[in-house]
Amino acid sequence: MIVVMKPEAPAEEIDRLSAEFREMGLTPEKIVGKHKTVVGLVGETAEMDALQLQDLSPWIEQVLRVEKPYKRVSKEYRHGEPSEVVVPTPNGPVTFSAFAPLVVVAGPCSVENETMIVETARRVKAAGAKFLRGGAFKPRTSPYAFQGHGESALELLQAAKDATGLGIITEVMDAADLEKICEVTDIVQVGARNMQNFSLLKKVGAQDKPVLLKRGMSATIDEWLMAAEYILAAGNPNVILCERGIRTFDNQYARNTLDLAVIPVLRSLTHLPIMIDPSHGTGKSEYVPSMAMAAIAAGTDSLMIEVHPNPSKALSDGPQSLTPERFDRLMQELSIIGNAVNRWEANPVPVLA
Amino acid sequence: MIVVMKPEAPAEEIDRLSAEFREMGLTPEKIVGKHKTVVGLVGETAEMDALQLQDLSPWIEQVLRVEKPYKRVSKEYRHGEPSEVVVPTPNGPVTFSAFAPLVVVAGPCSVENETMIVETARRVKAAGAKFLRGGAFKPRTSPYAFQGHGESALELLQAAKDATGLGIITEVMDAADLEKICEVTDIVQVGARNMQNFSLLKKVGAQDKPVLLKRGMSATIDEWLMAAEYILAAGNPNVILCERGIRTFDNQYARNTLDLAVIPVLRSLTHLPIMIDPSHGTGKSEYVPSMAMAAIAAGTDSLMIEVHPNPSKALSDGPQSLTPERFDRLMQELSIIGNAVNRWEANPVPVLA
Amino acid sequence: MIVVMKPEAPAEEIDRLSAEFREMGLTPEKIVGKHKTVVGLVGETAEMDALQLQDLSPWIEQVLRVEKPYKRVSKEYRHGEPSEVVVPTPNGPVTFSAFAPLVVVAGPCSVENETMIVETARRVKAAGAKFLRGGAFKPRTSPYAFQGHGESALELLQAAKDATGLGIITEVMDAADLEKICEVTDIVQVGARNMQNFSLLKKVGAQDKPVLLKRGMSATIDEWLMAAEYILAAGNPNVILCERGIRTFDNQYARNTLDLAVIPVLRSLTHLPIMIDPSHGTGKSEYVPSMAMAAIAAGTDSLMIEVHPNPSKALSDGPQSLTPERFDRLMQELSIIGNAVNRWEANPVPVLA
Amino acid sequence: MIVVMKPEAPAEEIDRLSAEFREMGLTPEKIVGKHKTVVGLVGETAEMDALQLQDLSPWIEQVLRVEKPYKRVSKEYRHGEPSEVVVPTPNGPVTFSAFAPLVVVAGPCSVENETMIVETARRVKAAGAKFLRGGAFKPRTSPYAFQGHGESALELLQAAKDATGLGIITEVMDAADLEKICEVTDIVQVGARNMQNFSLLKKVGAQDKPVLLKRGMSATIDEWLMAAEYILAAGNPNVILCERGIRTFDNQYARNTLDLAVIPVLRSLTHLPIMIDPSHGTGKSEYVPSMAMAAIAAGTDSLMIEVHPNPSKALSDGPQSLTPERFDRLMQELSIIGNAVNRWEANPVPVLA
Repeated sequence: MIVVMKPEAPAEEIDRLSAEFREMGLTPEKIVGKHKTVVGLVGETAEMDALQLQDLSPWIEQVLRVEKPYKRVSKEYRHGEPSEVVVPTPNGPVTFSAFAPLVVVAGPCSVENETMIVETARRVKAAGAKFLRGGAFKPRTSPYAFQGHGESALELLQAAKDATGLGIITEVMDAADLEKICEVTDIVQVGARNMQNFSLLKKVGAQDKPVLLKRGMSATIDEWLMAAEYILAAGNPNVILCERGIRTFDNQYARNTLDLAVIPVLRSLTHLPIMIDPSHGTGKSEYVPSMAMAAIAAGTDSLMIEVHPNPSKALSDGPQSLTPERFDRLMQELSIIGNAVNRWEANPVPVLA
Repeated sequence: MIVVMKPEAPAEEIDRLSAEFREMGLTPEKIVGKHKTVVGLVGETAEMDALQLQDLSPWIEQVLRVEKPYKRVSKEYRHGEPSEVVVPTPNGPVTFSAFAPLVVVAGPCSVENETMIVETARRVKAAGAKFLRGGAFKPRTSPYAFQGHGESALELLQAAKDATGLGIITEVMDAADLEKICEVTDIVQVGARNMQNFSLLKKVGAQDKPVLLKRGMSATIDEWLMAAEYILAAGNPNVILCERGIRTFDNQYARNTLDLAVIPVLRSLTHLPIMIDPSHGTGKSEYVPSMAMAAIAAGTDSLMIEVHPNPSKALSDGPQSLTPERFDRLMQELSIIGNAVNRWEANPVPVLA
Repeated sequence: MIVVMKPEAPAEEIDRLSAEFREMGLTPEKIVGKHKTVVGLVGETAEMDALQLQDLSPWIEQVLRVEKPYKRVSKEYRHGEPSEVVVPTPNGPVTFSAFAPLVVVAGPCSVENETMIVETARRVKAAGAKFLRGGAFKPRTSPYAFQGHGESALELLQAAKDATGLGIITEVMDAADLEKICEVTDIVQVGARNMQNFSLLKKVGAQDKPVLLKRGMSATIDEWLMAAEYILAAGNPNVILCERGIRTFDNQYARNTLDLAVIPVLRSLTHLPIMIDPSHGTGKSEYVPSMAMAAIAAGTDSLMIEVHPNPSKALSDGPQSLTPERFDRLMQELSIIGNAVNRWEANPVPVLA
Repeated sequence: MIVVMKPEAPAEEIDRLSAEFREMGLTPEKIVGKHKTVVGLVGETAEMDALQLQDLSPWIEQVLRVEKPYKRVSKEYRHGEPSEVVVPTPNGPVTFSAFAPLVVVAGPCSVENETMIVETARRVKAAGAKFLRGGAFKPRTSPYAFQGHGESALELLQAAKDATGLGIITEVMDAADLEKICEVTDIVQVGARNMQNFSLLKKVGAQDKPVLLKRGMSATIDEWLMAAEYILAAGNPNVILCERGIRTFDNQYARNTLDLAVIPVLRSLTHLPIMIDPSHGTGKSEYVPSMAMAAIAAGTDSLMIEVHPNPSKALSDGPQSLTPERFDRLMQELSIIGNAVNRWEANPVPVLA
């Protein structure tokens, strides 16, 4: 149930109401929007009568029922207002939101050594990226493939952060590593293969760092939103949804099918910000630029792009990585679309000497 | 095999060579590009030696083997030069090509009556469309559903053409109707369900009107290109490839999954122009604008958009149709992206009084 | 609407009622079952009242509404009684039905020459097959691949029929060939790629030979049944539904995913007989035997199995074809399951000397 | 690399060789088959020469290279001999293997209370099942849905085991629960959603209980085998592969598409035993019997079937659960096919008074 308060409702009245809801066995969550305050109610509301709830206070404007299986992630839960995931980084806070300029995340699939990660960080920062991505713990199909440098890679990510001030995004595969990862990372990534690892979702929901939730390879939109709901239900409201391509019958040229229609679909269903990953989404670096352009035109809030100083020697995902030079040029191409749709930050691409 | 001639090769030498190839049992096709002339060779070339062929004339620059299963539609067959499908319409010729401004095709799913089709034609023309789409013969899942008005609908399309000068695109389902359809239509559409109706492909390949070939619901890129190859092999070089969404595991919100990555994929494989149909591709009018924007940013050559004067009363596909008003606004939104990527024709959207 | 007559209802009363239905603008179809007669009504019945219809005659037992989009193919339309498709062949009539012994169809993908087709026919007949399959007109992905020997292959099929008395199944791709094909074939096949070629469905529905309707590569069960409905609606009640594998994300080992659950699903929805094609369904001869065994255990009415005298030299589909020797052994393996589930005809496998 | 020893090779020679391999930096694993002993070698073997290795001992019959990405699970690794997973239960050891009689696992989706689980255990045992399945920790799409009774459910499974002597199979979702689960369970299940939870795979690989590895919803055969390889590589050779339906475009009637062709495909690739779960595989109890019959005919080693004393009141997966009565009848139906293919244990279904 969603309780929409009148614009001028006094804070004490909202607190009083919340206490009353708690006594009724419900969990109220106050969401202060730009124009209104809304109180989301989670619990056994199926039998409750919206009109009776409305009688609890003259400051209630409306009581609405959420029909969707997901509650906290639904658009209705914030009365239509997109949420803002604000992430502190050494270079200052960065906001992921439908209201904010596009945020670009870039970096290699895995952290290989200090030189490569610090150098890549410098290059992607210069081109306008706000976050560095880089895998320390890597989910690999084969037990014999490179599994990431693990903890020592976390130190290298810290070094890259110190050197550039960029925010860090890295993946957690095992809840046992979560604490260590969160000492370094600014956003915790849950990968596609773990999208329905419900134990892990509960644990990233019970800590404070924002969570990047990648869509599972064959997850429906509803399953994806329900996975996000696990995180919000565990107490963490800061979730970013990342589309990275789905599995279909056709993978001869593009490794996955990048489902860009999730942008308008999610916009109509949820208040959470959206990221598109055209690198995993296509699996081939030559397809990345046009899909990145398309994602911005379709309204994404963020992009994740793989950049590696030497793609042909990458320990993983080389074929889908751009060189720093190509990434640099891409950012200039993206700025054209970004400016056209008013989502490009003033002057993000410094002229390189 | 592709025989690339030197830039200054004399026409008589090319003719002489072609005659020689014919004697060898091959079918030579001369393709005059902007910079060079290329001779495509179809036939039993598997055993032939490229170097030996090169010795046939000092005017040959290079002989290349096409490794792909498709030959005539391959990029190599035109030595990398995109083809131009030029379609005469009462308002003048319209070019579909990677080199030309974006072409917008709009109109209803089916032709319902004269008023609606002529009125829709007027509205979409005013908004900047160059072609009117409208179904006379409709492929319907149920034998009991409205099957299109057939021949009488062709007359109504003619009336709309007379009234507006727009080009016409309509679908052929049965080769027996092809002649009648071609009296009216400027582009013949082969629908998704008939993409591998090889008898029909041979017949549209044996006539002169350009062909719009929709991708089958579960066709791979290679199968789609091979279907186009059937048309070219039958003698018709004017084919436009139209992506209209593929069938995947997820159709709860969007009816199909619009596979926009076909744009860079096709660009790397074929010289044929590309059209995107976000209306069938998503099945819901509210998702159409952002997918149309994305398609332009990704580099499509053309868009097909369903427009109906009264979508809620449409005899078919109402939920995915825009009203003329919404289409009008969309064209202005599209012009922003179209101008940004330099694919928007000068002044296509007249200011409406 | 389904009008179930009382068991002892007089024929004249049923005729009188049918005339009355016709006057009401409906199309009545009398279906004489083992125990009861049922009158199916097609037309604008949405507004009609079942109880009012029941008042039309005291011999009516019940009036039922068919809620499904398909009517004539629905189980309700025959009041739950499976239909029997009886096909005359030189060796006598063969029945495809849930009530009849399993029918095995075997033969090569394409008819290559007289020796191979007559020899194959002899071998599969000796092993217990009742029908010979063999392609005269072949749907091929490439315009440059072998397209079948066409009309001359029909003569070879006739020769094989004359030599063995087997029934013939061959595919129609173009309505223009239908008449010639029907001079030879006993069952007309509509292939997977033409499952929604509605023009062709109407035409095979308007002739007399039974139709084998293969499921489209990505057709849902409902779409498949609606395609069958086109044939029944056009006047031909003799349709056999053939599952031949669907297209999914996984085709590394098996070319398609054979969807055997269609057997119980179709049984709950339609009265039409079912055939399973494990050769196309898996694409590899070594997987065919276990899938054929599974299909019988699951309750199929019929099997279609590719057999070629020399698979490694086959002009098409070699990898999925069994040799006559392997087919012979397979039939003996199948008889074990067939006897266990009581669907094996007495003594179909003659002991080979 | 696979080192096949001659039949009469002395044990000491095999030990000596193994030591030599270890010095070369390889990990040798001795596999004693029915007829021969084979030594599997894992490590950096890409550069090694098979002929040179053969010179290491006159008792070596052959040295073979495994070309597949999976090594320990490959059929070659055991020189073609199927493995036997022998599971001790109070009623005696039960063997899962291509050589052993079919093993039936049955029980409810989740453990609801003591009466229901003990009663269900009694009923399925009486009908011939060897294992009881029952979820204590349940992976649920919604955080608000019943998540299983957790630890207390483990006690109830123990009670059912004590009462009947059946082996227990239950799922682990979180490595933190593994120890507690293994105190009760005889086989640890890794569910479809965790098939690529590589951290969990490593942990179940590092303990002793056999592992049931369900196929992920959109996992290819190779990904599935690689997931099993993670478990074997971590030291646990006892893995059973369970097909439970894949996700495709069609889920209107059956919830998933049961991919029975995995039976011959896996048989050609791996030595591990196979289980089929027609309950999840179809999602509807009325489709379960025919798919269970099909699975046996196709050669499965084991079946997992959901049984609930009152499916319409089940806390989860009611629609796909059989009643104990229906399960009882099903076992008698299955015995017909099981006996026909020689995979039914003598007298497993006691005659019920």
